[in-house]
Amino acid sequence: MSGGYLKGRIRREDIISAAAVVYGEAGYHGASLREIAKRVGISHAGLLYHFPTKEALLAAVLERRDAEDAEREQLGVPPGLEVLRRFLALAEHNVRHPGIVEVYSRLAAEAVAPGHPAHEYFDRHYRQARERVRDSFRVLAETGELRAGVDPAEAALTFIALMDGLQVQWLTAPAQVDPVGTLRCCLQNLLTVPLFP
Amino acid sequence: MSGGYLKGRIRREDIISAAAVVYGEAGYHGASLREIAKRVGISHAGLLYHFPTKEALLAAVLERRDAEDAEREQLGVPPGLEVLRRFLALAEHNVRHPGIVEVYSRLAAEAVAPGHPAHEYFDRHYRQARERVRDSFRVLAETGELRAGVDPAEAALTFIALMDGLQVQWLTAPAQVDPVGTLRCCLQNLLTVPLFP
Repeated sequence: MSGGYLKGRIRREDIISAAAVVYGEAGYHGASLREIAKRVGISHAGLLYHFPTKEALLAAVLERRDAEDAEREQLGVPPGLEVLRRFLALAEHNVRHPGIVEVYSRLAAEAVAPGHPAHEYFDRHYRQARERVRDSFRVLAETGELRAGVDPAEAALTFIALMDGLQVQWLTAPAQVDPVGTLRCCLQNLLTVPLFP
Repeated sequence: MSGGYLKGRIRREDIISAAAVVYGEAGYHGASLREIAKRVGISHAGLLYHFPTKEALLAAVLERRDAEDAEREQLGVPPGLEVLRRFLALAEHNVRHPGIVEVYSRLAAEAVAPGHPAHEYFDRHYRQARERVRDSFRVLAETGELRAGVDPAEAALTFIALMDGLQVQWLTAPAQVDPVGTLRCCLQNLLTVPLFP
């Protein structure tokens, strides 16, 4: 790896970090490449060398978050109880990083419109999350570990929606809302076995 | 009522409506009074006559939505099963008005920061919603209509969070998510009596 290549990689990562901060403050639409360049301490042209468009930078911010989450929580495990535990671990990670959660909540709310450059990302992200949790509930249903009468698809949609909704209320009033405790409790209520034996 | 007064009231309502549309498109921070004035077809100075600051206009948008919701759903009924039915009616109204839901989701996500001019509004709004639903679950618990083991405060937090979280997924992929059906199902699961006899 040459010094120049390494330097470029570091600069790229700095830009992505600064962009995430500015999105959290001003939203994606309110953020400008000029402001992000200023935070990193480079010129506007310097930023454009790494990210020629606003959309390219947004894609990089979202991809990095997914890659970090996937690596940390090893989200690639087969469907089952362990997947649910990993989602809970992700919620625990999130309450220690309110800044990331804030960026993410803002972007998700902005990106509901089909024309938004992050729309496809969130559409895919939500669908995949629902499917992973649904498949896990299905596996648990087969072994009698899901409470009778619980519909796997419905419970999965509910669980992912609850994660999102709790985060907004928790960010608004951190002392009044315990997202992790509430999620753990809701998950346990769906199961006939202990979530954490 | 003088003609001038009436004209002023209509103009004021037009500005509030245009502001809600622009917030939905650009977020509160991304919206400018100039753009809102342009939509209404009045001058910037004309808008400032009605709303001297961005914050004053935001407050008017939020107050109008609350007043409309309260009037339509008669949210002032005493705690109990009827309150839960009214929240469900609100969810039904919302799926017929995606534009309003979009504005609202965006503003809620923006306003999590204590410095945001809508922060106090959302803090109070969420707290009041949780308390109303919690008190209703408590009343139902006393009459044996709440399922055993359900904690009223926890269930209320969950229900309000679920409403919010479902709305974002539904706005992102309307064909894949049924917020009203899911909320009705979740509420019914908490009760020992039919939600709609």
